[in-house]
Amino acid sequence: MTICAISTPNGTGGIAVIRVSGPDAVSAVSTIFRPKNEAHVLRDRPGYSMTFGSIVQPDTNEAVDEVVVSLFRAPHSFTGEDVVEISCHGSLYIQQEILKLLVQAGCRLARPGEFTQRAFLNGKMDLSQAEAVADVIASTSAAANRLAMNQMRGGFSTELNRLREKLLNFTSLVELELDFSEEEVEFADRGQLRQLADEIHRVIEKLCNSFALGNAIKNGIPVAIVGETNVGKSTLLNLLLNEDRAIVSDIHGTTRDTLEDTVNLNGIQFRFIDTAGIRDTTDAVENMGIERTYQKIEQARIILWLVDCTAVTEHIEWLADRIIRRSEGKKLIIVFNKIDKIEPDERQILEQLFQPYPAERIYISAKKQINTEELTQALIRAAQMPEMSENEVIVTNLRHYEALNKALQSITQVQEGLQANIPGDLLAQDIRECMHYLGEITGQISTDEILGNIFSKFCIGK
Amino acid sequence: MTICAISTPNGTGGIAVIRVSGPDAVSAVSTIFRPKNEAHVLRDRPGYSMTFGSIVQPDTNEAVDEVVVSLFRAPHSFTGEDVVEISCHGSLYIQQEILKLLVQAGCRLARPGEFTQRAFLNGKMDLSQAEAVADVIASTSAAANRLAMNQMRGGFSTELNRLREKLLNFTSLVELELDFSEEEVEFADRGQLRQLADEIHRVIEKLCNSFALGNAIKNGIPVAIVGETNVGKSTLLNLLLNEDRAIVSDIHGTTRDTLEDTVNLNGIQFRFIDTAGIRDTTDAVENMGIERTYQKIEQARIILWLVDCTAVTEHIEWLADRIIRRSEGKKLIIVFNKIDKIEPDERQILEQLFQPYPAERIYISAKKQINTEELTQALIRAAQMPEMSENEVIVTNLRHYEALNKALQSITQVQEGLQANIPGDLLAQDIRECMHYLGEITGQISTDEILGNIFSKFCIGK
Repeated sequence: MTICAISTPNGTGGIAVIRVSGPDAVSAVSTIFRPKNEAHVLRDRPGYSMTFGSIVQPDTNEAVDEVVVSLFRAPHSFTGEDVVEISCHGSLYIQQEILKLLVQAGCRLARPGEFTQRAFLNGKMDLSQAEAVADVIASTSAAANRLAMNQMRGGFSTELNRLREKLLNFTSLVELELDFSEEEVEFADRGQLRQLADEIHRVIEKLCNSFALGNAIKNGIPVAIVGETNVGKSTLLNLLLNEDRAIVSDIHGTTRDTLEDTVNLNGIQFRFIDTAGIRDTTDAVENMGIERTYQKIEQARIILWLVDCTAVTEHIEWLADRIIRRSEGKKLIIVFNKIDKIEPDERQILEQLFQPYPAERIYISAKKQINTEELTQALIRAAQMPEMSENEVIVTNLRHYEALNKALQSITQVQEGLQANIPGDLLAQDIRECMHYLGEITGQISTDEILGNIFSKFCIGK
Repeated sequence: MTICAISTPNGTGGIAVIRVSGPDAVSAVSTIFRPKNEAHVLRDRPGYSMTFGSIVQPDTNEAVDEVVVSLFRAPHSFTGEDVVEISCHGSLYIQQEILKLLVQAGCRLARPGEFTQRAFLNGKMDLSQAEAVADVIASTSAAANRLAMNQMRGGFSTELNRLREKLLNFTSLVELELDFSEEEVEFADRGQLRQLADEIHRVIEKLCNSFALGNAIKNGIPVAIVGETNVGKSTLLNLLLNEDRAIVSDIHGTTRDTLEDTVNLNGIQFRFIDTAGIRDTTDAVENMGIERTYQKIEQARIILWLVDCTAVTEHIEWLADRIIRRSEGKKLIIVFNKIDKIEPDERQILEQLFQPYPAERIYISAKKQINTEELTQALIRAAQMPEMSENEVIVTNLRHYEALNKALQSITQVQEGLQANIPGDLLAQDIRECMHYLGEITGQISTDEILGNIFSKFCIGK
């Protein structure tokens, strides 16, 4: 069945592109397309060529629009089928009209993601690559785009497929043993199998561990802004977000709930989380907010501990204990706010007071916007975690993460089985299970339900 | 200078198209494009070809996206210059990133309509055709699209240019006479000139007259819904618009102001205008509304006079007088509402009562949606005015209309001058004036101000 859809964003613009894919793409478009140069008959044109002409009502030959028609011949197209793309003027009326004419010519309106699904079904890409197409389209930062591009271009598919191939070999050998079970032969070298299982375990574990980072990159690196009440957290958040997102007031405890929003600094997506001020209070509602602040610290990768230079009290030790305990393994930056309001000698006292706490220090005024560029740079540095500098593969997709976790369980069972010298048939079963989950990621194993789930989240026209 | 812009509608979608036009289009794109097949070097590819590859950061060679690059070589392109179109994934990040890379490669962001302006300046189209490009993009109905397409494909440009050429001939001859003014020769045959002036007058007048219709088609055929208070005008408007646009209530005189909205019926754009109910009242505010109703009747092409079957009073004659007097030259349809609430004999009385009034009659219930399809059909028939069935050229553009009106004045002066046998130099001046206005339409005469005005209303990327 030949399908068609508007592939460009919804709305009016200079031009719009309508994509047609399927065995009848060329003939369907031919019924409504009249080339300007009569010699340029669409069905005789080569792949990767464009033809200028008009879309017409086939019964009256009345022109609907002047268009450029791009031709891609199977299998050298996105879907692997014959694909025709019609670049028309971007009026909503024209877009709808051409779609209507295509349907009259026998095409069907494409479902969301159906072009990409066909690319997958026709072997143009594996499932994780197909999923990356949606991520590429949704990416809002350089880092997220880089991850999605990596995955679309192969990413860990090649690696997983290589490991899966090897496992397949071993299962075949183990299963062969079962046929000769009376004879107690060992076709599959247990030592080599153990080595392979260890390698697979290592690779999968690394991929699983990369998910937290991958998720941070895809959805923004979580940065919690914490501190006592009324030290200027909301003002800082506004500054970082460049807008009046949080309610700023002079009343202690204004921010009861956590507020968050993302912003792109230097191509890195940050998710800033404003939190309720931490203080020793008996107010039940406020304490709930403080509890949530602690949770946010634990979910964050970077903690900005904001300190009001003009109002450091003996409480600081009590507070430091609570923040630092929860910042382990995270990047903690102490941000001294209202620096314009203190004298140099006061700053010295401050520095001494905070000396015990292991963290980077930045001195700013959020209100006067002093040194805020320095803060931005510190954030960008903090985001460059060691994992990111290596050029390794990072998992960003929850479905992959779940399948990898299950594969990790199975391969652990294989390892334990080898250790315990369990019978070949049980071993083969665990290996098959691991292969199943690895295959789910790249799509060697797929059900209509999985495919439906994946592609229904795409936009129409892709 | 080479320019670039996103040409597809603003937003996220399957794909987006970035257009680059100018002498350095190919070399600028080449710096950031890596063809998949290394043999497909962009600068060696023929026009009307596509090339698959990646957009990269030129310094790091890191891929930003996989794209298809379409190449059009001057003069065989929309602008008449070298044009490269980059079809990328429709993520906002990618679109912005590619634009950024193009600017780094020496391109400038295009101003609104700048591609079309270049097409005009490079002689790919005249000014009225260029303006039609914007109309094609803005068209929301089959009729508006047809008019815009007609104009884009030449429309009255050819006709106006032919007449202007002929005038030019005559002016030259008349002006030649001035050089020989002592000798009283007549190079320009006054009889032929009179014939030409008459022909031009006829053509321009026809074009001027077509503007009311052209405007109706472009902006929707104005249909005024009028009648007494509380006969169901707002309910009918809602029905026609398929939404709750007007406030519907049982209180007489709810609609004080006129409400209007457009809807596309069978490819024809209608602009329905709900009006304040007409009744004999001393309420000053309500009377202002009624005054406005009368104005709306005069601006409309079709009048729907809505009558409540269950509440016809002796006032009907008073009302009929006011409506029919203002409906001359328009299509009047009397719509009897609440037809479900009367008996057949009551309907007979009704028919007799309205017998004197020359108009089509439709019996409906707006609330119960009885016979509303019949009403729709009557509207569509009413919209098929005699002018529309002829395949003549129709003016839709206010700028053209104004220039045509001025040209009409000048040619009338030429005609009068010929009649009065005025001296050749005065005659030549009037002819020059007429030529000037005709030239303004097609752009032979254009100032930066006129061009700026026209193209600044375009969208960016076209």
